[in-house]
Amino acid sequence: MNSQHTIALDVMGGDRGPEVVIPGANLSLIRQPEIRFLLFGDEKAIARSLERYPDLADKSEIIHTDVSIPMDAKPSQALRKGRWKSGMWLAIQAVRDGKAGAAVSAGNTGALMAMAKFCLKTLPGIERPAIAAIWPTVSSECIVLDVGANVSANARQLVEFAVMGAAMAHDVFGQKRPSVGLLNIGVEEIKGLDDIKNASAALRSFDTPFEYKGFVEGDDVGQGVVDVVVTEGFAGNIALKTAEGTAKQIGAYLRAAMNRSLLARLGAFLAQDAFRALSDKMDPRHSNGGVFLGLKGIVIKSHGGTDATGFASAIDLSYDLAREHMVERIADNIQKYHATLKLDDVA
Amino acid sequence: MNSQHTIALDVMGGDRGPEVVIPGANLSLIRQPEIRFLLFGDEKAIARSLERYPDLADKSEIIHTDVSIPMDAKPSQALRKGRWKSGMWLAIQAVRDGKAGAAVSAGNTGALMAMAKFCLKTLPGIERPAIAAIWPTVSSECIVLDVGANVSANARQLVEFAVMGAAMAHDVFGQKRPSVGLLNIGVEEIKGLDDIKNASAALRSFDTPFEYKGFVEGDDVGQGVVDVVVTEGFAGNIALKTAEGTAKQIGAYLRAAMNRSLLARLGAFLAQDAFRALSDKMDPRHSNGGVFLGLKGIVIKSHGGTDATGFASAIDLSYDLAREHMVERIADNIQKYHATLKLDDVA
Repeated sequence: MNSQHTIALDVMGGDRGPEVVIPGANLSLIRQPEIRFLLFGDEKAIARSLERYPDLADKSEIIHTDVSIPMDAKPSQALRKGRWKSGMWLAIQAVRDGKAGAAVSAGNTGALMAMAKFCLKTLPGIERPAIAAIWPTVSSECIVLDVGANVSANARQLVEFAVMGAAMAHDVFGQKRPSVGLLNIGVEEIKGLDDIKNASAALRSFDTPFEYKGFVEGDDVGQGVVDVVVTEGFAGNIALKTAEGTAKQIGAYLRAAMNRSLLARLGAFLAQDAFRALSDKMDPRHSNGGVFLGLKGIVIKSHGGTDATGFASAIDLSYDLAREHMVERIADNIQKYHATLKLDDVA
Repeated sequence: MNSQHTIALDVMGGDRGPEVVIPGANLSLIRQPEIRFLLFGDEKAIARSLERYPDLADKSEIIHTDVSIPMDAKPSQALRKGRWKSGMWLAIQAVRDGKAGAAVSAGNTGALMAMAKFCLKTLPGIERPAIAAIWPTVSSECIVLDVGANVSANARQLVEFAVMGAAMAHDVFGQKRPSVGLLNIGVEEIKGLDDIKNASAALRSFDTPFEYKGFVEGDDVGQGVVDVVVTEGFAGNIALKTAEGTAKQIGAYLRAAMNRSLLARLGAFLAQDAFRALSDKMDPRHSNGGVFLGLKGIVIKSHGGTDATGFASAIDLSYDLAREHMVERIADNIQKYHATLKLDDVA
């Protein structure tokens, strides 16, 4: 069995561990029957959860460890205590050793990134890994990166993010030439944006396998103006959380509005299919999964508080990326750009 | 007549100039009959627009100038060509000279900020002015700053933003002790956030006339977790635009959902009052107006593309701030903090 069909799961990670991870894996298996799992964590707890899913049990191998990383552990603590032996580490190591095509964890982001960097190492030519999120748009979806791996980025790093994000768009959306934009603010002649301007000039100056569209603003992201939005991690994380918060807020307004009168309640009852479609469209579980880009292997961070449906989305995403050989595509493209663009001069 | 009842308007600013500014002023006058206006711009165009509003004409003085600042002028060009004589400049100058309590312009942001700084000067003890926006929340509204005057901020500047934002919350929301949060991302031990951490330590270390609540994340803003959200201008601008974009996007989803079947259309028809209330609640015109804080006078930037309703909101806001003597409150509080907090040590 080819390892790209095998996904390594950190079963004890996340707010509810196997209660969410196991039924999530089962949902994903139903959609993709050729998938296999390596399940890292407490053997007894996993076996108990698997009892209800005999098909999943057939496709899974349990690897016992009694070390798991607490959700509030600091990255340095997690590395010290969990390296070589925690479920999180072992899942990543399975990717490194070619036993799995990707690892998925709902554990804590900082610990997962620290372990992934330490175990897998960064791809040659890439300064820093980034975290990419899938963002729903009016027309379909786009990719936004970095959403929090770093809190700043120089021009060279922004160019690398563009290359990595475009490779991911190729593999997730099946786009031959994804469009890419740099997130900026619409104020002329403002100081301090030299990195963004230099990255933009660099992206314009050579023949990319994606279409560079220039600057985009915060309100362009959800309009689907480009397939890939590149930014540094502080603004990217704040934009992502702000969009999630705004969606929640409008959902609350909508529920309040539909309860304000008998007529409104009747209207809402008649339109319940429409509301169901809307709530499905706005469901954050469909786009669950932050992809760590720039490492020698695929690691995906699921929301810690998601449920089985959300966790299954993160597995599906990891499976797509593993089968499409995203890591090789990123490595190839980065090598090409280093040859033509001289990224070392960009920063 | 006390000047704090007089608002200076840059009539030719914005995408549609007097067509929007004059009916906007009239709407505001209806709500606040004691208001007076100084109208700066092309005399004939203004007089023509005023014909339909005799009450407004009675309360207004027209000051003619044929210089106006193009929407796409760079700040340096605008200063060179429009200083001393453009409508934008003259409106700000009226504030400086005590003839008006505040100036409102829908002209270009960079030009307006450059002129406001040049003409009014920064308050003693403040390093940089900021732009504050009013942000609708689930419970009511909050203030977010900076949303784009600068693209970075050190610890001292963030503390100053907190002081200024709290003074504005006092005057706009009538809150004796507004709550203040620092926008941050929820990743532990990440590097590069020293300014935010130092600002947070400084805000905790002394007795503020506001309640400092610590860090908030992007999804807390719309939940109304604090009255004032402090951040640097790049992330703040992106957050603001992202929230606007998300609201637009969900509006589009909602319309599409309500048109997908006959039953949904019938439901939407019955619930039309509820939808109207919802769309009123989400109407960005209600929170139109970016307040320039930290200058020796009040200047408000209206959206360039707003209509009379939106422009009237910006006037209402400027009138509130002028009557409440916000500038004096900021100046007093900054002096106090300089005495106790030694802001010079914070940076």
